[in-house]
Amino acid sequence: MSAINPQASELNDIIEAENASVTTMLSAKGKGIFFPAKGILGQTAAAKGKRINATIGIALEDDGTPMRLPAIEKLVSLPPAAVFPYAPSFGDAELRRVWLANIRGKNPSLGDTQLSTPVVTNALTHALSIAGYLFLDPGDTLILPDLYWGNYNLIFKNGYDAKLATHTTFVDGAYHVDGLRQALKAGGIGKKVVLLNFPNNPTGYTATEAEMDALRDVLVAAASAGNDLVVLIDDAYFGLVYEDGVGRESMFAKLADSHERLLAVKIDGATKEDYVWGLRVGFLTYAVRGGTAALYSALEAKTAGAVRGNISNASQLSQSLVKAALQSDTYAVEKEAKFEILQRRYTRIKEILAAHPEYSEAFVPAPFNSGYFLCLQLEADPERVRQILLKDFDTGTIAASGLLRIAFSATPFGLLEDLFANIFAATKAAQAE
Amino acid sequence: MSAINPQASELNDIIEAENASVTTMLSAKGKGIFFPAKGILGQTAAAKGKRINATIGIALEDDGTPMRLPAIEKLVSLPPAAVFPYAPSFGDAELRRVWLANIRGKNPSLGDTQLSTPVVTNALTHALSIAGYLFLDPGDTLILPDLYWGNYNLIFKNGYDAKLATHTTFVDGAYHVDGLRQALKAGGIGKKVVLLNFPNNPTGYTATEAEMDALRDVLVAAASAGNDLVVLIDDAYFGLVYEDGVGRESMFAKLADSHERLLAVKIDGATKEDYVWGLRVGFLTYAVRGGTAALYSALEAKTAGAVRGNISNASQLSQSLVKAALQSDTYAVEKEAKFEILQRRYTRIKEILAAHPEYSEAFVPAPFNSGYFLCLQLEADPERVRQILLKDFDTGTIAASGLLRIAFSATPFGLLEDLFANIFAATKAAQAE
Repeated sequence: MSAINPQASELNDIIEAENASVTTMLSAKGKGIFFPAKGILGQTAAAKGKRINATIGIALEDDGTPMRLPAIEKLVSLPPAAVFPYAPSFGDAELRRVWLANIRGKNPSLGDTQLSTPVVTNALTHALSIAGYLFLDPGDTLILPDLYWGNYNLIFKNGYDAKLATHTTFVDGAYHVDGLRQALKAGGIGKKVVLLNFPNNPTGYTATEAEMDALRDVLVAAASAGNDLVVLIDDAYFGLVYEDGVGRESMFAKLADSHERLLAVKIDGATKEDYVWGLRVGFLTYAVRGGTAALYSALEAKTAGAVRGNISNASQLSQSLVKAALQSDTYAVEKEAKFEILQRRYTRIKEILAAHPEYSEAFVPAPFNSGYFLCLQLEADPERVRQILLKDFDTGTIAASGLLRIAFSATPFGLLEDLFANIFAATKAAQAE
Repeated sequence: MSAINPQASELNDIIEAENASVTTMLSAKGKGIFFPAKGILGQTAAAKGKRINATIGIALEDDGTPMRLPAIEKLVSLPPAAVFPYAPSFGDAELRRVWLANIRGKNPSLGDTQLSTPVVTNALTHALSIAGYLFLDPGDTLILPDLYWGNYNLIFKNGYDAKLATHTTFVDGAYHVDGLRQALKAGGIGKKVVLLNFPNNPTGYTATEAEMDALRDVLVAAASAGNDLVVLIDDAYFGLVYEDGVGRESMFAKLADSHERLLAVKIDGATKEDYVWGLRVGFLTYAVRGGTAALYSALEAKTAGAVRGNISNASQLSQSLVKAALQSDTYAVEKEAKFEILQRRYTRIKEILAAHPEYSEAFVPAPFNSGYFLCLQLEADPERVRQILLKDFDTGTIAASGLLRIAFSATPFGLLEDLFANIFAATKAAQAE
């Protein structure tokens, strides 16, 4: 690293004074980054509202509104200022406040625990990548279960030269909490980075309430033992839980006020929660026991600096659309209607599996209770079954991690029965080869 | 770096076979990255059009259209498939073709030189960042003029631990081509990375036709001497040229077919060319003499892999809107109208400066002929003048790099005369302090 910029040193000094463990958690890049509040951006902010404002890095019409092509303007029913100008690197200020209020609303056990204000990213992948920037040095280890989203490889291994240390995800049909406990013991006391993802991609599993408590206890014990823990909480599929007794709140709520040596990093977004994959709106939110406004402000500035040095900012249009939805009178009703479509498919799958005990000769589902997916453990090679399904059954599935992944999120209700019948038949065919 | 993935090795072997110099240009991260065509994404592609398709990682309604909230759908006049699903990591296929055709249209001297198909990024900053990922190892040097966009510091120094080696931008009112020649000699023969930015931020300067030819000659001479050159061409403000004799085409056109050891990397986007700062649509396009479809395809796969491991993909909605504009019958007319607004302001500034010879007691403009900005060399401290302008003249400007930057892009025509009168008065006031 080259010399640390004085603006980064200011942030580092604040973090060190507020919680020295967080200093330990930051990567070299995380220590080096800052939001350039004193440069062009700060000078632009200072000029806001002046009669003559020649600071702005966009073009304005002679009437002072954003310059824009009618061919684009006519396609979007929002004011030009909500579409065409740059969003702040931190994200749209109002959207950040609304999203924070919604995090609290969806996780009532947070109570009045102090949190950072969410920083906007170009959706979940980008939030994960920025977390890697801030917390993972080359050679650092990321601890996670062995059934994980494949893109973590590109994000963390290729992007930040991190190592992934995986533990068995399930033992006896339950989440393997002890796998995490053992993984945290490796390498002695020090900085540790953990990733939790519920509902999980690819399995569609969310920890039960009891498992979430046990995970929290394991993490708090590790922090109490002197480890400085960064816990990345990938909440991409948050809210899509279909069974009682399964965690309805995020692990973030369990961990936000759990220990001074445990920084909870909530990675979430509108992508799956609000059915807007193509808009790219995600968030990074921090919490640590005793976290102060000064600490969070410094972490937000580093996060926004990392965003600025990577993509400048996320789409203002997309942020305006998500904000409009969240503030709409019909939002809750609309969202519930979509949830019910997915839950109805989930329930139907449970019925199909119960009605066909013979399917267990061909496959058993890995634990699932939430999200978009379930995974089947096949009595044949999943890749071979996938190919037979494509060729002979007009049916597409994903073979990965030794499992067959089924996206019921994308499968209409009326096709579910045929889907499982086809998988059964294709697996039988593969077994007979 | 951990072990190279076999899919990355395949791409590396292609690149090595097609042009071994390009192998030398890639960073360790660039050598390690690949687009995971054989995983979930490849399997999803294979399932396209099947009667039952349980591969897709989004949610579909029971009628097979993308799930979506009416509160968002009602605000955008595009089909749901153009708004809600993920875009490919490479970018929308049709937009990529249209943008490539437009690059050729705007740079006719490219003729039929073979180019890569543009890969979509989350606008220009992100394209620069991805170029850093692919071509800059920690400690590598990036050669550029000393008047440059400040965010290059966060992108390249903070993001990739690169060093910036700057040379004087102007000598005697002309671009200092020899500064580049000298910079290329430092450190002996080897891999060199250069950045060119016309129209330049902050100065609003574009090299003249003759200077562009001289720049090309210097770069080709360095390649002929055995250097492996990556030339990043930041074309953010492309097309906004207001004077005759100034380069109307990109340096990319001069360099695309110039030498086997010179990889030209065009970084451009809709942001400023099409007045959509808040949409975030940029592109990365490659050219090298003798470049083959196989070479470009491998570079595109690495680029899309870097995009996928950082942000997954850019906004589909934004890409659809830009595509709609580019394909609109009124696009050319609308764009010309905006250009004329900016050119009219530029011409007015020239008139104001000519009408006020006394202004030269307070400031002289740095060379400018294009883009959004001009910079003034003041006979007083720019930061002090900026503060006086804010406090006493209701006028906002930017003080940076020892200059005062004026965004006439954001200053209505009717305020230009007052703007320069205010700067003159404020500079006089600063001189009198």
